Amino acid sequence: MIIILDPAATAAQRDELTSDLKSRGYGIHLSEGVERTIVGVIGAIEQDKSSLVEQFEALPYVERVVPILKPYKLVGKPFKPEGTVINVRGVQIGGGTLCVMAGPCTVESPEMLFETADYVKSVGAHVLRGGAFKPSTSPYSFHGMGEAGLKLLAEARDRTGLPIITEVMDTRDVELVGKYADIFQIGTRNMANYSLLREVGASRKPVMLKRGWASTIEEWLQAAEYIASQGNYEIILCERGIRTFETYTRNTFDINAIPAVKELSHLPIFADPSHATGRRSLVNAVSRGAVATGADGLILETHPNPEKSVKDGAQSLTFDQFGQLMNDIRPIALAVGMKL
Amino acid sequence: MIIILDPAATAAQRDELTSDLKSRGYGIHLSEGVERTIVGVIGAIEQDKSSLVEQFEALPYVERVVPILKPYKLVGKPFKPEGTVINVRGVQIGGGTLCVMAGPCTVESPEMLFETADYVKSVGAHVLRGGAFKPSTSPYSFHGMGEAGLKLLAEARDRTGLPIITEVMDTRDVELVGKYADIFQIGTRNMANYSLLREVGASRKPVMLKRGWASTIEEWLQAAEYIASQGNYEIILCERGIRTFETYTRNTFDINAIPAVKELSHLPIFADPSHATGRRSLVNAVSRGAVATGADGLILETHPNPEKSVKDGAQSLTFDQFGQLMNDIRPIALAVGMKL
Amino acid sequence: MIIILDPAATAAQRDELTSDLKSRGYGIHLSEGVERTIVGVIGAIEQDKSSLVEQFEALPYVERVVPILKPYKLVGKPFKPEGTVINVRGVQIGGGTLCVMAGPCTVESPEMLFETADYVKSVGAHVLRGGAFKPSTSPYSFHGMGEAGLKLLAEARDRTGLPIITEVMDTRDVELVGKYADIFQIGTRNMANYSLLREVGASRKPVMLKRGWASTIEEWLQAAEYIASQGNYEIILCERGIRTFETYTRNTFDINAIPAVKELSHLPIFADPSHATGRRSLVNAVSRGAVATGADGLILETHPNPEKSVKDGAQSLTFDQFGQLMNDIRPIALAVGMKL
Amino acid sequence: MIIILDPAATAAQRDELTSDLKSRGYGIHLSEGVERTIVGVIGAIEQDKSSLVEQFEALPYVERVVPILKPYKLVGKPFKPEGTVINVRGVQIGGGTLCVMAGPCTVESPEMLFETADYVKSVGAHVLRGGAFKPSTSPYSFHGMGEAGLKLLAEARDRTGLPIITEVMDTRDVELVGKYADIFQIGTRNMANYSLLREVGASRKPVMLKRGWASTIEEWLQAAEYIASQGNYEIILCERGIRTFETYTRNTFDINAIPAVKELSHLPIFADPSHATGRRSLVNAVSRGAVATGADGLILETHPNPEKSVKDGAQSLTFDQFGQLMNDIRPIALAVGMKL
Repeated sequence: MIIILDPAATAAQRDELTSDLKSRGYGIHLSEGVERTIVGVIGAIEQDKSSLVEQFEALPYVERVVPILKPYKLVGKPFKPEGTVINVRGVQIGGGTLCVMAGPCTVESPEMLFETADYVKSVGAHVLRGGAFKPSTSPYSFHGMGEAGLKLLAEARDRTGLPIITEVMDTRDVELVGKYADIFQIGTRNMANYSLLREVGASRKPVMLKRGWASTIEEWLQAAEYIASQGNYEIILCERGIRTFETYTRNTFDINAIPAVKELSHLPIFADPSHATGRRSLVNAVSRGAVATGADGLILETHPNPEKSVKDGAQSLTFDQFGQLMNDIRPIALAVGMKL
Repeated sequence: MIIILDPAATAAQRDELTSDLKSRGYGIHLSEGVERTIVGVIGAIEQDKSSLVEQFEALPYVERVVPILKPYKLVGKPFKPEGTVINVRGVQIGGGTLCVMAGPCTVESPEMLFETADYVKSVGAHVLRGGAFKPSTSPYSFHGMGEAGLKLLAEARDRTGLPIITEVMDTRDVELVGKYADIFQIGTRNMANYSLLREVGASRKPVMLKRGWASTIEEWLQAAEYIASQGNYEIILCERGIRTFETYTRNTFDINAIPAVKELSHLPIFADPSHATGRRSLVNAVSRGAVATGADGLILETHPNPEKSVKDGAQSLTFDQFGQLMNDIRPIALAVGMKL
Repeated sequence: MIIILDPAATAAQRDELTSDLKSRGYGIHLSEGVERTIVGVIGAIEQDKSSLVEQFEALPYVERVVPILKPYKLVGKPFKPEGTVINVRGVQIGGGTLCVMAGPCTVESPEMLFETADYVKSVGAHVLRGGAFKPSTSPYSFHGMGEAGLKLLAEARDRTGLPIITEVMDTRDVELVGKYADIFQIGTRNMANYSLLREVGASRKPVMLKRGWASTIEEWLQAAEYIASQGNYEIILCERGIRTFETYTRNTFDINAIPAVKELSHLPIFADPSHATGRRSLVNAVSRGAVATGADGLILETHPNPEKSVKDGAQSLTFDQFGQLMNDIRPIALAVGMKL
Repeated sequence: MIIILDPAATAAQRDELTSDLKSRGYGIHLSEGVERTIVGVIGAIEQDKSSLVEQFEALPYVERVVPILKPYKLVGKPFKPEGTVINVRGVQIGGGTLCVMAGPCTVESPEMLFETADYVKSVGAHVLRGGAFKPSTSPYSFHGMGEAGLKLLAEARDRTGLPIITEVMDTRDVELVGKYADIFQIGTRNMANYSLLREVGASRKPVMLKRGWASTIEEWLQAAEYIASQGNYEIILCERGIRTFETYTRNTFDINAIPAVKELSHLPIFADPSHATGRRSLVNAVSRGAVATGADGLILETHPNPEKSVKDGAQSLTFDQFGQLMNDIRPIALAVGMKL
């Protein structure tokens, strides 16, 4: 941590600060520049000291505090440079294999779920997605089938062999969802729901952590650190688009985040082109881009009849479109050296 | 709702759509323009039909769907044009009286809490704030004293007579927090935590709902609608700044939201200049601006020793600064015709 | 155009509006819904009537005006569905061939320019880029060599046969730059410099129009329409990243914009991964993504010694890195059916 | 400037860097921390060395470069702590007097201009605004009356005694506009049009510099530095709203910027509530807020018949609304100790 003093800071204030730091056990490195005095603080373990930054910034004679180290550790690249590989019922996530998760936004009925599960399996998807508990912006919208939806997902798994991923939104549901799901999904609205992160961190199931729609990459990795800090290292990050001023698309897909996460963290990184665009017509192209950029996998919405879908119809692919997409990403995965 | 057909839509597709709409019980108003056909859908109650928009946008021959009505009802201005006034232990919120809530970010100890409570009371604040459960970006930071903090807040209330507001973050804590708090606070990270909104909606205590840092005003009002839909109409909205590209301040205070909420909703609207700026030096000016713009109240952080604060030190006012602020907003409140 | 009346609008106001519209020569289509009256305006040519929207929104009894048609025409997809293909000294831009433009941010000296030109040519680039007039955030930074730089670019063209692209920033320089450049570049800061757009529109040279860093896709296409409206249809759009709250990267690369532009416009669309990321370590991955998504080309910064570069050093590739990138995008271009 | 080395940097690399710095004439202050080596660079005049930051960031063994000093000097607070006061034909700008500039968006005819000028003068406005050259997002919209409009503005000045402010958009028009205008206005789209900034900097007329809609406060002050660096210190900054995800308002008014600019710069700071909201119904409230926050002045759009306005109708005040606003801001100006 580096503390930059205000030009008006006095020698007495500088000494007060350095004494305080020494009494807390830090080493001090003082640099008196032409226009500013800079105090280097040596030995600060910044992961557990973010409040220190705020405290020193609160001093009237401090202009700015610059943290030097990353505010996360367990999910940082140096912690496991070889990268995390997760195995879910035989499906490999990370480690050079492209993994595709697909299914409907919401479980609506046995028929539509089984039809979708059969189809996505037939064209090569590896994991079945589907929502039983759904966040909806309006309180009057459908909020999912709940446990009945989870049971149908489990039935679809029995039928197809595909592991299942489904969202959990409430700390009180973690146990229930965990009875059925192979992978927990934490949605964008809950990325900073720290109680929920700790709860899935205490489980021993893989967790897909979607990026908050207005969260920086650093905050996202700190959210992952919450899960890891409870002992669960099987975390899959998922970029699903962020909020910007652009209105033609539902979100702006931050594709930079894919290689950025790869250089900052050892965790696998997925892309969700359905939410990242919000427009079915853009999903194929953006999926190709995500694979070429190095994503470890995709999560996609497909529905037998998007125009009858209770949610996310505009961004769900028809079966034909999903089949086409699976064909289109294959040569790109090969071109970047991934197995599919 | 208005459905704009794609220029390439055929007459058969148009008829299929209108038949479908009629079979769902809607009236139809068809307008054939020079370049587009537009289908007006009459009778759609759009609060509970947001999924309809998505379904029709999913049709390949539909270019765009334009909702006409607001997606909220109970919290909309027409539902209660005279405005909501809330009474908490004799303190009036809304209705032309300026209400100031103040206190430390976090309850740290009895001494600092009581000292702060006494001070804010002495200079005219109406409600005591303080966090017992704290959201922190880092898993390694302090997360609050929990129930011990709630007990201290209750003690501070007994001592000063000030009602207390404190944050609840987990559905499982609503009952516990409700035993002590006079007003629930829902933080920015939980604005779209719909389980939590429903839970505080089922209580009969006032709720302050902070705006999500990347939520539109419309989404914020829909979040309030979640609470109201459970029967709890005592909701206080609070603008606390949104995420933008600007880095000099912690957030960008969207002051436009104050008069915007006043024309869209009957709920009282507060401002949180501490979080909206993240810099103590800007809090006084922005508080003055919020009052002049018509805010029903302010919520502010103050601490006996900001540089020792476990959290939010850089944005907490010293007591002197807080006392000055109370003096500075008084003539402005009078200038806009409010009581203080 | 659709005009939605305020619920409080009277019949007299509605009639006043429809009379006014009829007197301006528009057809009217009136729809009285349960809660709103909607006036469809038929015959409005909205490209030249954007001020109409504002006028009607100014009426106290109008709630909202919804434009139906796109606010651009010449650059819209329906104007030339087969797509624009541009030929610059034998280099094809658009039409299924991937085009790579590369070179230094700024022309610094003959040696570095010729060395770079020779290298990028040797590994397969098609166009040489280099700045002679440079926009700099600081008035004290280097602003380019001016005409001397243009002359060096022309010399590099003679030497390598590569056509050259260079930025023009001032209406007064269009003639001078046009004497040397094969393609004008309009930078992100000047996307809405309408005088400059008109000036390059009046020339008969191709223009690369970079997206404004805070401009929507629609505004970008309207800026292109400025150029086209002067008779110059040889426009290349270039996505170079937009401003968001993310700070790890210099900009957020809006990859959604590539397929979005392809469905809205007939113009070729390029990507600029150097500016879109601002970090050399991310450029290769994002370039691969752009090609896979369907970009017609890339524009990239490379420098013999990035750490000696007078500008944009952190995002400039070394020669080795650029050569590697050319190798890495080739199989991806093939995978999406493009020639390279 | 502080250079943070990569954890993998070798001693040889560190020495190479420090030798390079010494050979450029800088002092070095080396700090070897537990996990990082930090190089303090002493004597760097960072206003003219922004490219240095980029060069050092380009080194493969450098993790990050942290500038310490502000990248502007002439417009910074320490350069003139007492604040800049500008006098335009007897009207004081800055220095504790509130200044209101008002008029139509665009000069449309003598009648409407003179009627507006007479009215705004009668209710106490100090400067007349009006556009003769207008930026329009669409090439097919009205672009202003040009010199004829300037002549009408000059006539309105003769008639009322009010100084006039009008926009200049093209370097080639600076001389012409300067013949008529008392104050140049640089619009939001041209904040980073550096040629234009230099041109008005070379004039000896006051310049109002609007903030770019996606520019940080720091970039805005650097743009002002461009003008000042040419010798023209009579600069008025104007916050007019920035681009965010919020769609209810045209822009988000960054009211934090007002006190932020006051602590960073000595230049007067105005607010433009018309553009900052884009909605007439919000202008009064936001104007009150801007004054209470400490703005030195307001610039506002008013029109005899907003619904006939050729531009910005939805945000222009009627005369009655403008008169009301003048009444409403008076007690607030007094409450914050300003003269009006």
